[in-house]
Amino acid sequence: MVAAAQEQPIGIFDSGVGGLTVLHALRDRLPDEDLLYLGDTARLPYGTKSEESVQRYASHAAGWLRQRGIKLLVVACNTASALALDALRAQLAPVPVIGVVEPGAQAAVALSHAHRHLVLATESTAARRAYTRAIHALDPVAKVEELGCSVFVALAEEGWSNGPVAAAAAAAYLGSVPERPAAERPDTAILGCTHFPLLREAIATVLGPDITIVDSASTTADAVVARLDELGLRKASAATGSLQLVATDSPARFATVGSAFLGERFTADDIELTDIHPLEIGAR
Amino acid sequence: MVAAAQEQPIGIFDSGVGGLTVLHALRDRLPDEDLLYLGDTARLPYGTKSEESVQRYASHAAGWLRQRGIKLLVVACNTASALALDALRAQLAPVPVIGVVEPGAQAAVALSHAHRHLVLATESTAARRAYTRAIHALDPVAKVEELGCSVFVALAEEGWSNGPVAAAAAAAYLGSVPERPAAERPDTAILGCTHFPLLREAIATVLGPDITIVDSASTTADAVVARLDELGLRKASAATGSLQLVATDSPARFATVGSAFLGERFTADDIELTDIHPLEIGAR
Repeated sequence: MVAAAQEQPIGIFDSGVGGLTVLHALRDRLPDEDLLYLGDTARLPYGTKSEESVQRYASHAAGWLRQRGIKLLVVACNTASALALDALRAQLAPVPVIGVVEPGAQAAVALSHAHRHLVLATESTAARRAYTRAIHALDPVAKVEELGCSVFVALAEEGWSNGPVAAAAAAAYLGSVPERPAAERPDTAILGCTHFPLLREAIATVLGPDITIVDSASTTADAVVARLDELGLRKASAATGSLQLVATDSPARFATVGSAFLGERFTADDIELTDIHPLEIGAR
Repeated sequence: MVAAAQEQPIGIFDSGVGGLTVLHALRDRLPDEDLLYLGDTARLPYGTKSEESVQRYASHAAGWLRQRGIKLLVVACNTASALALDALRAQLAPVPVIGVVEPGAQAAVALSHAHRHLVLATESTAARRAYTRAIHALDPVAKVEELGCSVFVALAEEGWSNGPVAAAAAAAYLGSVPERPAAERPDTAILGCTHFPLLREAIATVLGPDITIVDSASTTADAVVARLDELGLRKASAATGSLQLVATDSPARFATVGSAFLGERFTADDIELTDIHPLEIGAR
């Protein structure tokens, strides 16, 4: 018997551990909901892969989660949100699909007075300008600057979210921003990579108090809550929600690095290892 | 007609751009030789993948290079050298296969008086202890410490090989090493990741003059020269060697990042894009 839609888990998908910051924000807001997280660690990072590869991997991941049974899919990966969201919505309909780019863009536009935004992302997300498009759809006169800050990913994964290396990297990337004339200074900085909430303090210290930081992990969680309410999909029973973690490779590393992202210790034994990819011909 | 073995290129294989430091060292020593470099950028990084995945990817890459025709294979990837070298030697025989781990270990043992070595590597290479095994095969009493320094990879790829972030990262990883009592201090530091030669200066500044840095890119190139001479495989004609670069994905990024590694500017148009992987069932 298929469970009523309300009782199914929310599916969350990322290329690796980064999306655990979104999972963390979801658990804060929705402690009763069951959550099923899939990290496609066998294929990470998506950011350096071609558009075709990212779309294929994302489609496999979404298909695998749908087969398990989910009531909503969160694409907690900026690259997949930028490149594959429309295709995933078509593939999963009528199951709703929420990416991380649109909620971050909406929050930034709502918070900005200056209509000037700075997006911090990986090099590949920045080059694809997905946040620029999403912001311009809401505020056509906005100025959007997307800045690749790939070293932040390595620092988050190393556990160096604070301290001298994070401070030096934040200063190297962002030190000149608060020194700009007021008329050229952004008033929001969007953390456009799921790893970056871990470096929020180092980033905020360099940017100073006049630039509001928009954390796309928490804005995405807010969007999920709103969508569940809109569709009447909140879980009826009040039992504490379960959490299931699935990875496609290297569960030991997933556990070591991921614990900091989730804000909770877990081990490789807590992670289900799976193979999400169907038969492929000439697979890259 | 198959070209005489001497006239075939040397094949070099890595998961991405890192092996270009080995290619650079090979071109310095062997300017007449033709070189064919394959970066499996569709699957990088190998370091976080399972042993089975790495062996499969390495086997595909080696098979693809053999089909093109090579007289010697350099596995310019520490992870593949650590996990797949024996299998690749069996697969490619009689074509000789040289990895990066053994030449680095040999050079370190030859240079050390203290029998104490520090290996700087990615987290996954360090965990696999391939350098420890290779050094112990030559010097059973040696003390070997392997230290994961994954942030160095991101710094090299960002072009931050020098400057305040590299200095802070080198100090964070290595600052305590020169402060140890002399009887506990290593006297060699092996750059056990093909990215790390770019950070040699930042690393050497922190380690100080009493610790000799062993660059496995240049020691591997020396090993290739010795093997070609031993087998009579040096190219007979004295024409300047050709260089062919092949990647499995994202040639634009390969060109941007790779130019610093090779020490020479090239563009995406200089790179052949290929798909090296045969039919796979249930591919991860």
